[in-house]
Amino acid sequence: MDHSEMPHRVWQLSERARKLTSSAIREILKVTERPEVISFAGGLPAPATFPAERIRAATDRVLRDAPAAALQYSATEGYLPLREWVAARLSTNGATIRASQVLITTGSQQALDLLGKVLIDPASPVLVETPTYLGALQAFSLYEPQFRQVPTDDEGLVPEALTAALTDGARLIYAQPNFQNPTGRRLPLERRVALAEFARTSAFPVIEDDPYGALDYAGSPLPTLLSMAPDHVVYCGTFSKILAPGLRLGYIVAPEELHFKLVQAKQATDLHTPTLTQRIVYEVIKDGFIDEQIPAVRALYRDQCEAMLAALARHMPTGVSWNRPEGGMFIWVTLPAHIDSMQLLEAAIAQNVAFVPGAPFFASEPQKHLLRLSFVTVPPARIDEGVARLAALIRERI
Amino acid sequence: MDHSEMPHRVWQLSERARKLTSSAIREILKVTERPEVISFAGGLPAPATFPAERIRAATDRVLRDAPAAALQYSATEGYLPLREWVAARLSTNGATIRASQVLITTGSQQALDLLGKVLIDPASPVLVETPTYLGALQAFSLYEPQFRQVPTDDEGLVPEALTAALTDGARLIYAQPNFQNPTGRRLPLERRVALAEFARTSAFPVIEDDPYGALDYAGSPLPTLLSMAPDHVVYCGTFSKILAPGLRLGYIVAPEELHFKLVQAKQATDLHTPTLTQRIVYEVIKDGFIDEQIPAVRALYRDQCEAMLAALARHMPTGVSWNRPEGGMFIWVTLPAHIDSMQLLEAAIAQNVAFVPGAPFFASEPQKHLLRLSFVTVPPARIDEGVARLAALIRERI
Repeated sequence: MDHSEMPHRVWQLSERARKLTSSAIREILKVTERPEVISFAGGLPAPATFPAERIRAATDRVLRDAPAAALQYSATEGYLPLREWVAARLSTNGATIRASQVLITTGSQQALDLLGKVLIDPASPVLVETPTYLGALQAFSLYEPQFRQVPTDDEGLVPEALTAALTDGARLIYAQPNFQNPTGRRLPLERRVALAEFARTSAFPVIEDDPYGALDYAGSPLPTLLSMAPDHVVYCGTFSKILAPGLRLGYIVAPEELHFKLVQAKQATDLHTPTLTQRIVYEVIKDGFIDEQIPAVRALYRDQCEAMLAALARHMPTGVSWNRPEGGMFIWVTLPAHIDSMQLLEAAIAQNVAFVPGAPFFASEPQKHLLRLSFVTVPPARIDEGVARLAALIRERI
Repeated sequence: MDHSEMPHRVWQLSERARKLTSSAIREILKVTERPEVISFAGGLPAPATFPAERIRAATDRVLRDAPAAALQYSATEGYLPLREWVAARLSTNGATIRASQVLITTGSQQALDLLGKVLIDPASPVLVETPTYLGALQAFSLYEPQFRQVPTDDEGLVPEALTAALTDGARLIYAQPNFQNPTGRRLPLERRVALAEFARTSAFPVIEDDPYGALDYAGSPLPTLLSMAPDHVVYCGTFSKILAPGLRLGYIVAPEELHFKLVQAKQATDLHTPTLTQRIVYEVIKDGFIDEQIPAVRALYRDQCEAMLAALARHMPTGVSWNRPEGGMFIWVTLPAHIDSMQLLEAAIAQNVAFVPGAPFFASEPQKHLLRLSFVTVPPARIDEGVARLAALIRERI
C-alpha cells in the first residue's frame, strides 16, 4: 500500500513528506535478511574487517581517561582532534585543508542531508551523474530539487557534457569520482583535472562524495577534486567502509563560509554527532592504525571482487556484460536490453539470491536492463553459487 | 559579522539557510567553557550522574557477544529490543504503546528535525508555548513555519486559549508539559486532560516533548498526553538527561501512519542512529538499572535546585522573582521590567558568571526582563557564589 495516498485526518503531511513513497525494492529486499539468501544487494561491509577488539579497547581507554567529556554534550563541529586528523589526511596533492573546515557528521548520509538543507531550494536544478547514488537522490529529494542528469560513459562523468544548457541556473553538481555507487567506475585523472577546471572557471560548486576512495585495490589513489579546487568543492568522507558503518561517523570538508552555515544547520538537526563514537574512533586511529587497516580491507575486497568476476565469466551467458572495478564494492552488470532487472529480482528472490536493480539509481529515464552486484558481504564460495543461480535465471530469459 | 549577508559567489544558499543567523547569545556563551566561569547557562547534566563504568562494562559485553551486529548497518527504525523497552515504559495510564510506533533518533533534537521535515510546509502555522524551547524553534525554523504563540501562565499552557482564531489552519501544537525548558513549569493534571480532550475532539496534532519527565523530584509523575490521546499525540523522549547526553539517543513514538513517514525521512537523513550506542544503552538498561539511576539523578538535582533557591532567597534584591520547580533542570527568573537580561549577561560574563537571557525562547515579541538559570551543572558551593555575583549586578541596576 502506498501510505502517501492515505487520508491524514489528524496528521497533515508536508509537501515533501507526501512525495516520499515506499520503495518497492526496499520491501522486496527485506527478505535478504534471511540467512539462506545469498545477497549481493546491500553494500554491507564484511564484518571480518571490523576491528572490534580495537574498538573495545579504545572504548575502555576513553571511558577510563575522560568519562565526563566522552558522555557529555559537545561542540556541533565535532571533536577537534578528529577534525585535525581528517584535515591532515586530506591535505594531499599540495592542498592545505584546515580543521576549521571540517564538520563531523552522523555518517556521510547526514552530510548529504545537511548539504541539501543549506544549498537546495524547491525546484533548484541539481546535477547528478547518470546513474548516481540512490541515497543522494533520497537525501536531496526532501528539498525538492529538479535533477538534471549529466551524461557518463564507461569512465564516468563526461566533463565536456557540462554545457551551458545543462549547467545554467544549477546549484551544484554531485559526483562520486572513486568507484562510484552503483557503477564501480573511477573518474580518470584527466577528467578530474577538467572537472576541477570547470568548477574554478565557472565558479560552479561540486560535491565530491568519496566513501570508497580508500578501497583502491592497487593502492594508487588519484587526486581528490578537493585538492584541485578547494574553494569550489565540498568533500564528504566516512569511516563506514574502513572501520565500521554501525558507528555512523562521517565528515564534510567545506570552504569556511559554507562550513559556518552547515554547522548552524547541524545544530538545529541533532546538536552534534555522539561524543562517545567520535572519541572512540579517534582513539582507534590516532596512532596510525588506519594505515594497517586499509590495506587489509582492500586485500579482502580485491579477492572477493576477483571471485565475483571469475564467477561472472564462468556462468554468465553471452549478451551479459560487466565492468572490472579497480576498487570499491560494486560491479555494474548490463543485461540484454529486453530483460527487466526488477522482474529478474523477483525471480532471483524466489531462488534465494538478491541484487539491486539499476533503475532507482537514475534521477529520471531509468534504464531497466542494469543491475548492481555487491561483492563485499558474501564470502567467495557463496559468491560463485549465487552468481550461478543468477546466470541460470538470465539464461532462461535470453 | 552576520554571515547570511555575505556575498556567495560560488555557494548559493537556500532560502532556509539564508534565514539562519548567528546567535549573539551563542557567541557570548562560548566563554562559559572557561573553567573560571560559573555557568548557569547550559543545560549540561552533571557528569557525576553519568554511569561511565556501567557503560564501559556494557560496551565490553556488546563487542564481545555481538561484534559484527553492533558495528554493522542496521534498521532505520532502531534496535528492536530498545524499541520494545521504550514501548513498555510508555505503556502507562491504561495506554498500550507498541514497539512498531517507536523510532530511535540521534537525540531528541533529531526527533524535532524529523517532525519538522514531515509535518511543516513553508508558512504552515505552528503553535508553541510562550516562551518555548529554543531548540524546537531552531529545528522547526528550517522548515519555515509561521509560529503562533499560545498564552501561558505560572502553570504553563492555558488550554482555554486554544480558540479557533489561534488554531485555525495550524499544523500542530508543540509543548513540553514536564518542567518546561526554559520555565521549569509542569502542566497540571486538569490542563493535561483539557489539552488531550482538545486534541481528540478537534483532531488536532500535539507534539509532547518530554526530556525532563523522569526528573520529577517527588517521584509522582503526571500522566503523559500520549497516554490520554495516543492517536493525536507524538511523544519525544531521550536518554540524555537520565543516562548521558553524549550518547545522543532519543526516540519518537507516533501513530503508525506517521511513524512510517518519519522512518522514510530518517532513512534519507542519516540511514539510522549508531548501532553501537543503541546496543550499549539497551545493555545498560535492560535489567532495570534505570530504576536505580533515576532516583539518584533526581536526588542530586533536587539538592542543587534547593541550593539555588536558597541562594536566590539569600542574595536577590526585592523586585526579582522566580518559580520553585518540582523537577527538571531550570529556574525562570523575572527581573524588574526595566532590566534587559541580554545587557545583564554581558556584565555577568565580565564577572565570570553566565545564564541564558529569556528573549530567544519567544517565537515573537520577546520579553527582555527574563532569564533562565540551570542548576544541574554547577555544584552547590559555587551555585551560591554565582548567584551572589548575579544578585550584585542586578542590585546595581535597580
